[in-house]
Amino acid sequence: MLHEIMAKGLDEAIRMAEKSWSEGGIPIGSVLMTEDGEVVAAGHNERVQTGDPTAHAEMVCLRNAGRRRDWRELTLVSTLSPCSMCTGTAVLYKVKRVVIGENGTFMGAEHWLHESGISTHVMHDPRCIALMERLQREKPDLWAEDIGE
Amino acid sequence: MLHEIMAKGLDEAIRMAEKSWSEGGIPIGSVLMTEDGEVVAAGHNERVQTGDPTAHAEMVCLRNAGRRRDWRELTLVSTLSPCSMCTGTAVLYKVKRVVIGENGTFMGAEHWLHESGISTHVMHDPRCIALMERLQREKPDLWAEDIGE
Repeated sequence: MLHEIMAKGLDEAIRMAEKSWSEGGIPIGSVLMTEDGEVVAAGHNERVQTGDPTAHAEMVCLRNAGRRRDWRELTLVSTLSPCSMCTGTAVLYKVKRVVIGENGTFMGAEHWLHESGISTHVMHDPRCIALMERLQREKPDLWAEDIGE
Repeated sequence: MLHEIMAKGLDEAIRMAEKSWSEGGIPIGSVLMTEDGEVVAAGHNERVQTGDPTAHAEMVCLRNAGRRRDWRELTLVSTLSPCSMCTGTAVLYKVKRVVIGENGTFMGAEHWLHESGISTHVMHDPRCIALMERLQREKPDLWAEDIGE
């Protein structure tokens, strides 16, 4: 996948994260895209908005993608390194690739992606880092709840 | 946890699985319970019923449990060995224990539970085996979809 296509997907995931933050929610966003850059689904964390403890951004995105059989051709993009729940889901459906906005403020279960043969691309995007640093500074308890701490 | 309490939880999970099958859905059920046997949430696979690819029984059960901070005191019961998605979720929330109806018709990602220090109890229950054998015999394509095959 071309770097420009991954960057376009990340831009859309960041838009989803900003939307969630503007609603009082957790600022993490995700998109699912084809190899040529078509966004087939998008989502953001909805824990605050819906009260659902499984509603991480990647889960909402995959839920919005609906029932399909082409997961192995799709790339999952997230503004943040995916936690063990979202990683386990990527492994279940054997997505082709996971693009990660940043993994400095939180390191998820990327080793499970590696051991499952799913390639990862970490973008080290300063916008994603800023979204998480603001969450961790302004709503540390909400963030702790989101990762089971 | 006493064996009778685990057995009571599994009975309820089996009732959820049978309900799903009677609706045309995938016959896998789950409950979340306290150490003294109170069922705090239950659920069954809802892929067919709602079209949600993340709606495995354990995920629906945890979703029904809502926002809470006592995951580490709770036991997750499932009629079947949890797949990587459901296992990753149990690891995220660090549930105390996972009780598994059977793991002969399908082996999920139990090694991730072990490496995360979550204890597992496999019940080898013939009712759970019968539910899965019927699914695999009568609706093999639906089952394949459910595990990303």
